[in-house]
Amino acid sequence: MAPMATIAVIGAGAVGSYYGAMLARGGHDVRFLMRRDLDAVRERGLDIRSPRGDFRLDHVTACASPDEIGLVDWVICSLKTTALESARELVAPCVGPTTRVVALMNGLGIEEHFAGWTGGWRVFGGMAFVGINRGEPGVVHHIAYGRVSIGHFEDDPAQLEELKTLLESGAIEVAVAPNLRYARWEKLCWNVPFNGLSVAAGGVGTRAIVGDPALRRTAEAAMREVVATGNADLLAHNSPAHLDEEQVVRAMFAQTDVLGDYNTSMAIDYVLGRDLEVEAIHGEVSRRAAALGVPTPTVDALYALVRAADLRNRGQLPVIGGQ
Amino acid sequence: MAPMATIAVIGAGAVGSYYGAMLARGGHDVRFLMRRDLDAVRERGLDIRSPRGDFRLDHVTACASPDEIGLVDWVICSLKTTALESARELVAPCVGPTTRVVALMNGLGIEEHFAGWTGGWRVFGGMAFVGINRGEPGVVHHIAYGRVSIGHFEDDPAQLEELKTLLESGAIEVAVAPNLRYARWEKLCWNVPFNGLSVAAGGVGTRAIVGDPALRRTAEAAMREVVATGNADLLAHNSPAHLDEEQVVRAMFAQTDVLGDYNTSMAIDYVLGRDLEVEAIHGEVSRRAAALGVPTPTVDALYALVRAADLRNRGQLPVIGGQ
Repeated sequence: MAPMATIAVIGAGAVGSYYGAMLARGGHDVRFLMRRDLDAVRERGLDIRSPRGDFRLDHVTACASPDEIGLVDWVICSLKTTALESARELVAPCVGPTTRVVALMNGLGIEEHFAGWTGGWRVFGGMAFVGINRGEPGVVHHIAYGRVSIGHFEDDPAQLEELKTLLESGAIEVAVAPNLRYARWEKLCWNVPFNGLSVAAGGVGTRAIVGDPALRRTAEAAMREVVATGNADLLAHNSPAHLDEEQVVRAMFAQTDVLGDYNTSMAIDYVLGRDLEVEAIHGEVSRRAAALGVPTPTVDALYALVRAADLRNRGQLPVIGGQ
Repeated sequence: MAPMATIAVIGAGAVGSYYGAMLARGGHDVRFLMRRDLDAVRERGLDIRSPRGDFRLDHVTACASPDEIGLVDWVICSLKTTALESARELVAPCVGPTTRVVALMNGLGIEEHFAGWTGGWRVFGGMAFVGINRGEPGVVHHIAYGRVSIGHFEDDPAQLEELKTLLESGAIEVAVAPNLRYARWEKLCWNVPFNGLSVAAGGVGTRAIVGDPALRRTAEAAMREVVATGNADLLAHNSPAHLDEEQVVRAMFAQTDVLGDYNTSMAIDYVLGRDLEVEAIHGEVSRRAAALGVPTPTVDALYALVRAADLRNRGQLPVIGGQ
């Protein structure tokens, strides 16, 4: 059993709200930094709708600033990577001498950012393999899966055991990855093709991708390029961990095929005109592949096209007949 | 000098109208099969606006059906490839025993279609390297370039000389290609990247593509894949002609860099919700590459995404929040 812990959830979107609510239900003192949902959650609590059983938290510590949260045992940072530059000022007020920081975010180069100012010993990465979307303010729709793959910035097994115990006390399924780098690449094997194509194909769900033969082939090509880049990166860092290409492709498509018509976070951001996490996902992979000498033409094309979609949304790429 | 010829222009979009008008100005009896612009052209003639000098034809033989056109010496078929299936019924009424047929169309597998029913000896391909858009009915905006690269289905030099003489009598710049297959691939080196990206990036002009580093790299990657596929295809057909990869890339980008913000025909079709020529351009290249064993990941991705845009326009690929 984990002792009762104080936990700050910095960036309570769908992922932060869901896992934070699981931990609160598990008896921990969870304090959420909220923006959009702040008033609704203060008034009505937090509602989790899930095929595994709905639950609600009537009383939620929802805060408007990290100072209001104060020092905690654990910080779970679930900001979007587009907000990575402001992560330090949002996280730092909650970090005391023994506080640990879990980056529950997409992309590459995330933990490095935190380790740089807070020290690597306290930094973890969490990769959530979960189908989840926000509903109206205060409501989170959990759709499928939920496993969190965790790694520690310095690969410390004792530290990993502590985080595993904490998450499991919230009934969260945990997988300890061979190492953090492996876990990041494993997650990218899904994010690059499916987030990318969901935007590049014009804002579509996963069913449109896996159900269309040409889009499905493109997803697979991108996934294989990510595996190749990830393995080259692991090798370059003397990691014994290795992504099994056929196993990854088989597993990722099998999971996505039964996901229904899931809307990726990037597709939702796209249709709502929000900033896209394209640099931390596609940009990082494309750049690392180039540095490692791994050809990634499909990923490069997705990078260019998702980036174009992002620029278009901001009015920085003029469209024909547009304003 | 070419003797006065009777010429049917089947499919008088921008390209057909422009070259037909050049030939009419050159003294030939040109009869246009028109749909959208029929009434306007019958009433007010045809207006060509061009940096090389505007000109207008006050009296134009604009017809609503090929039977009205009757038998001619030359048929110039400038239909969209999406109308290829109906080309035979539109062209056949104009074809007598000595009529020649010039397919002034994009894509691959075009001349084969005509040769199949009319005999290869009379079939030519024309590849127009021209920046051109339709304006209001009866007006064509010529923007830049204009060279027509021609090939004969059976590589008959005497036949090629006749077509060259005809076109030059309309002050059209002509290049006789080493062979028809070479000419088709050369044109695809531009069409695949620029038509493809102009749609996949959301309906943008060429300036957006050449001016954005990531899109420009993707265009170049696609172009190099088309060169490789074209050369493999030429080799497989025992053609001595060969595309010089570096020369093609240099020339195509140099021409496009000074084109201004040109809207590709496919981007215009896309924003107007018309059928896209994706199968004859990207689909054919992707399939031939696969058959020849040439890897074309960038082209394959563009094929999937332009096809997705086409399906989306027809309501056959559901978008998030769409109807």
